[in-house]
Amino acid sequence: MTRERLTLYDTTLRDGQQTQGVQFSTAEKHQIAAMLDSLGIDYIEGGWPGANPTDSEFFATKPQTKAIFTAFGMTKRAGRSAENDDVLAAVLNAGTQAVCLVGKCHDFHVTTALGISLEENLENIGASVAHCVAQGREAHFDAEHFFDGFKANPDYALAALHAAHDAGARWVILCDTNGGTLPSEISAITKAVIDSGIAGAHLGIHCHDDTGQAVACTLAAVEAGARQIQGTLNGLGERCGNASLTTLIPTLLLKPAYAERFETGVSHDALKTLLRISRKLDDILNRVPQRSLPYVGASAFAHKAGLHASAILKDPSTYEHIDPAEVGNARVVPMSNQAGQSNLRLRLTEMGISVDKGDTRLFDILEHVKAREDQGYAYDSAQASFELLARRALGQVPDFFEVKRYRVTVERRKNKYNQMVSLSEAVVVVKIGAEKKLSVSESVDSEGHDRGPVNALAKALAKDLGPYQAAIDDMKLVDFKVRITQGGTEAVTRVIIDSEDGQGRRWSTVGVSPNIVDASFEALLDAVVWKFLRDGVRPCPS
Amino acid sequence: MTRERLTLYDTTLRDGQQTQGVQFSTAEKHQIAAMLDSLGIDYIEGGWPGANPTDSEFFATKPQTKAIFTAFGMTKRAGRSAENDDVLAAVLNAGTQAVCLVGKCHDFHVTTALGISLEENLENIGASVAHCVAQGREAHFDAEHFFDGFKANPDYALAALHAAHDAGARWVILCDTNGGTLPSEISAITKAVIDSGIAGAHLGIHCHDDTGQAVACTLAAVEAGARQIQGTLNGLGERCGNASLTTLIPTLLLKPAYAERFETGVSHDALKTLLRISRKLDDILNRVPQRSLPYVGASAFAHKAGLHASAILKDPSTYEHIDPAEVGNARVVPMSNQAGQSNLRLRLTEMGISVDKGDTRLFDILEHVKAREDQGYAYDSAQASFELLARRALGQVPDFFEVKRYRVTVERRKNKYNQMVSLSEAVVVVKIGAEKKLSVSESVDSEGHDRGPVNALAKALAKDLGPYQAAIDDMKLVDFKVRITQGGTEAVTRVIIDSEDGQGRRWSTVGVSPNIVDASFEALLDAVVWKFLRDGVRPCPS
Repeated sequence: MTRERLTLYDTTLRDGQQTQGVQFSTAEKHQIAAMLDSLGIDYIEGGWPGANPTDSEFFATKPQTKAIFTAFGMTKRAGRSAENDDVLAAVLNAGTQAVCLVGKCHDFHVTTALGISLEENLENIGASVAHCVAQGREAHFDAEHFFDGFKANPDYALAALHAAHDAGARWVILCDTNGGTLPSEISAITKAVIDSGIAGAHLGIHCHDDTGQAVACTLAAVEAGARQIQGTLNGLGERCGNASLTTLIPTLLLKPAYAERFETGVSHDALKTLLRISRKLDDILNRVPQRSLPYVGASAFAHKAGLHASAILKDPSTYEHIDPAEVGNARVVPMSNQAGQSNLRLRLTEMGISVDKGDTRLFDILEHVKAREDQGYAYDSAQASFELLARRALGQVPDFFEVKRYRVTVERRKNKYNQMVSLSEAVVVVKIGAEKKLSVSESVDSEGHDRGPVNALAKALAKDLGPYQAAIDDMKLVDFKVRITQGGTEAVTRVIIDSEDGQGRRWSTVGVSPNIVDASFEALLDAVVWKFLRDGVRPCPS
Repeated sequence: MTRERLTLYDTTLRDGQQTQGVQFSTAEKHQIAAMLDSLGIDYIEGGWPGANPTDSEFFATKPQTKAIFTAFGMTKRAGRSAENDDVLAAVLNAGTQAVCLVGKCHDFHVTTALGISLEENLENIGASVAHCVAQGREAHFDAEHFFDGFKANPDYALAALHAAHDAGARWVILCDTNGGTLPSEISAITKAVIDSGIAGAHLGIHCHDDTGQAVACTLAAVEAGARQIQGTLNGLGERCGNASLTTLIPTLLLKPAYAERFETGVSHDALKTLLRISRKLDDILNRVPQRSLPYVGASAFAHKAGLHASAILKDPSTYEHIDPAEVGNARVVPMSNQAGQSNLRLRLTEMGISVDKGDTRLFDILEHVKAREDQGYAYDSAQASFELLARRALGQVPDFFEVKRYRVTVERRKNKYNQMVSLSEAVVVVKIGAEKKLSVSESVDSEGHDRGPVNALAKALAKDLGPYQAAIDDMKLVDFKVRITQGGTEAVTRVIIDSEDGQGRRWSTVGVSPNIVDASFEALLDAVVWKFLRDGVRPCPS
């Protein structure tokens, strides 16, 4: 049986950036684009070249992707030609294979928000699309407020679509910009568009979650004939967010009603990385992953009710709509270590540690992880600390050195030029073998700037580790995330530190304490010890 | 025009309690029941009497509500009469007007999970419902796994429903227990049930969010004829949660497709309290409210894109699907470097600051915001700091006091019991008017635990602000977020602090520095000054 191809268009880097509190750096945009590409997305919309410095910089260094990399912009303004519109020119100058232009379809918006005539708007749409096509680009038309526009004036809304379609747009995307349209309305209106003469193979759908139905609206449009789906990872996006590709993709691949009719560019192997991609995005955003997310949430396959858990042991399909492994997730059954132990063995194997099934130390490690996570540790985001925990339980981590004490001072006061300046100083005392070493560092970098107490502490710790020095000379701290979390009955601080070395290895460690400096120091120590293990450093005899 | 009545059934206190990490106390159950009752819910399911001590205690002290208070339980077990089933007896002994019993409808579950014959199960259902009715109770039958059961064996699934219906059940509730059924399937199967002879006026719907479509599935069942809706506040519930009444209620009341056909027990006045109820529940659970929740999320009416904000100024309906005030919410126009002058003016207006269009100070503020965001500040997450920035640019922030200097020391060493312990100490020197004040605090709390350097600093700053002391005595630091970000060419630390006062006001401030202590101190200072402004504190003459 031949299945129809659905096209997936990701707008995490553009509409997703409209989420309150989200501001991607250029480096983060590159990371996310690479994740999307590995997943098998067809189009990656990178942002709006010319709209802000980050987007312009991202397009200047645009990633090499299998996906079609796409620039977003808007149709030309009235009173000038497409060739002479500087905003449109900035978009085209980004040099992407595809260009997606937003334009208005709701008569009220044309006259109220734009303040131009209905005819001028149609001309703007047609001329802009034609200009892109003439430049050899694949043109997409984002039909803003299409559904509300259709309800108000169907003829005009359709005329706007056809202006783009007739000018050569490869895709015309029906946008429910305000997010208030219901699935039944989406379905009926999408069918009306197809009846007006635009084939479903040229129609896309772009929904928002303002009534909690972005996914259902998207699927309703697909059932009505639309063949391009726009969405974002984790449902990021303005207001309540966009349709979540993290939810839509597994639904399309795993639910027979869709899987039997359609195929996408996402393979079942790639689907197994979905949870990791979802968490990585949260990591980049320093957000706590939402436990209740469909498919990829930490609770998505957690069976708390006693009745459910006992049935699950008899047959998982009794209370699971899909196999969690299909999306890289795992069953959580409180009070049952069955699933936990096989997960754990798998993780240990990945780190090159082999432990026999049924080894009681597996149980010890699980209990230890559980106790530490109760205190606020997060081992999902700190694989290196998890590895150390497991290796310590297995007696595989030697005592390289002992920290006897440390002290950090942060002082802010006026300098001789009457400017307020800060200075931090750290003293660390370690014992290596029989030798005691005192190191002191301050937080000022080579350009005379204060880098703060954790920097001073890291420098003091790394200043003189005697025989181990060579192993850490190429280490640097590349990211540092802190959050207040609940540990037992008290709020504590969790610090996650990402380190990198000269070989490009990157690893994450975690520390927890009510004291942010202590938590940082714990994570720093783990980072150093992990590096020693990886480099095969031999401990000094004590 | 007569509208049909839809019945709302809340299961926050029962299925909502299956959420990972949720465990209500009896007092909290009382608080939540009162909130649900004030909203106008028809049925409040309180829990399962006899299943655990909290639920038993709650039913022993059961609340007086306008809503019909309902006990949950399961149909009797095989091999005994309904009269002699102790589990069922505990449910009936709770003495509620209505009783909701869950029973199996999926043949596979009957034989696999229960291990009884299909006929025995039908007998259990009929006899249990009949027993409740004979005791003068209103009986509800929760048809577990109904949709999966219908797909596997429609005759048996329908037979289970009819066993309950024929025995006198007031309501038969179609449950999508595993949450994997799609809206189109829900619709078709609900219609099949009505065709089998159970009127829609006796049919309820109970959905879960495992494909992100709990709301859409619920509405699909209503469109197919079901007239009772089960759900929870904020979509709490096992795994991905239940259908959210917080989303469904505004949709039913505000979307013409439903509002014109149906009415519920929730008035438009009560609807205006929805946001407060949603937040109160998060408060009880000590959860950070999800910003992107439909209708009631803090971001649900946040307009970050510059183009959107300029249109909103012309007419709010351009980018809002409903009036936020209808659900007690409000429009937010966050500031960020993507925003233009119209965003800014709107934002200022909302803070009670009126600046004429074209006022050059608008340009100054925008430039200032852009420059600061380039340094790493994030004003859309720190509204209070933004307000201070704007008011400073407009000359509306007096000099309350001056920080002359501070010093923080963190020390970790062995105590007399040979344990490693930490202690932080902070000294802050401020000048208020002509007076210089030195304050010192340490990081140890009333229970002798070290709370870290930022805590010591906050305490030292707040220890003696002389004439301003009264204004800050009820302030507390409730959240603290830190991340490394790129400021100019250097990595810097951004700290966002959430503060709260005795009146329940909550505000966010931001500080940026390479030094985490400095960044924290800057955010703390902003928090204090914002509170002074809000409370109308008069500056001391200097």
